[in-house]
Amino acid sequence: MTLVSSERLYNGRVINLDRDTVRFPDGSTGELEMVRHPGASAVVPFLDEPRGADPRIHLIRQFRHAANGPIWEIPAGRLDPGETPATCAQRELEEEIGLTADVLARLITIYTTPGFTDEKIHVFLAHELRKGVHRREPDEFMEVHTRRWSEVMGMVRTGEIQDGKTLAALLYIQCFRR
Amino acid sequence: MTLVSSERLYNGRVINLDRDTVRFPDGSTGELEMVRHPGASAVVPFLDEPRGADPRIHLIRQFRHAANGPIWEIPAGRLDPGETPATCAQRELEEEIGLTADVLARLITIYTTPGFTDEKIHVFLAHELRKGVHRREPDEFMEVHTRRWSEVMGMVRTGEIQDGKTLAALLYIQCFRR
Repeated sequence: MTLVSSERLYNGRVINLDRDTVRFPDGSTGELEMVRHPGASAVVPFLDEPRGADPRIHLIRQFRHAANGPIWEIPAGRLDPGETPATCAQRELEEEIGLTADVLARLITIYTTPGFTDEKIHVFLAHELRKGVHRREPDEFMEVHTRRWSEVMGMVRTGEIQDGKTLAALLYIQCFRR
Repeated sequence: MTLVSSERLYNGRVINLDRDTVRFPDGSTGELEMVRHPGASAVVPFLDEPRGADPRIHLIRQFRHAANGPIWEIPAGRLDPGETPATCAQRELEEEIGLTADVLARLITIYTTPGFTDEKIHVFLAHELRKGVHRREPDEFMEVHTRRWSEVMGMVRTGEIQDGKTLAALLYIQCFRR
């Protein structure tokens, strides 16, 4: 699939919207709407040793207009221009939870919904946390909660946790890092 | 968070884009860009008993303009107007893989990326598959591949599978349905 032309329909604060004309593998062409996003990092912060008996993690309960209410998430945010995913993960961890991590391990990279956006989220596991400085953005309304891993897995199993990056991150750790 | 007003910026083929003015929990107001999406269903189709020794599933390798190439996914697609998630899952399974399922179990519902879209994907597990009719849409370029569960888990672990809904669905099954 190759790009023939691209028309910018909207320049936004968080996203941009393009209408791209592409050539498909069979030689035909078509139009696709594509939400351009700078990418993001997300991080699962462990208060205790991640492979410990029943460690605790920090979760965020955040008001999301898209969900008409609060949902459970891990700390995450957009990459600043030129910022590496690891630096972004540390920055968001400090802004949203008020902590920095001495150990940051990259887990996976996720296309959130590749049918209409190029957004990729880089997912990290963090531990050996130290006190940093809360610097929450003015339009973010969230509470920090601390939960045992066993309780978090119950929230995943029952469907209480619905955020895509959060589900993928927590389940990846349960399968491959425990 | 309550909606004060909404301005439609773009009416698209797959998505619409709104600029919403919302009142935040502290009483202040702000603008949020919101990609409106009708929602979707996705399905993990098992050729063998899902709890069997090393069952096989069908995966799709699909060209995605957003990813600049092909990526691994499970069959999925948008809800038609008035369609239930289960009917959509069966329809997409038949359109993309050419099979229908006698057993369809709902697993989880995922907000793909709630920072800028209301898209929700309803994830199902399917088994007892029977031959149906391929009816692929003209702008979908995909191949169907059959893989052992152990091999699929290897593709998740190493990062070869990057699609959010696919990661969440496969890892959920590995944790809670095996």
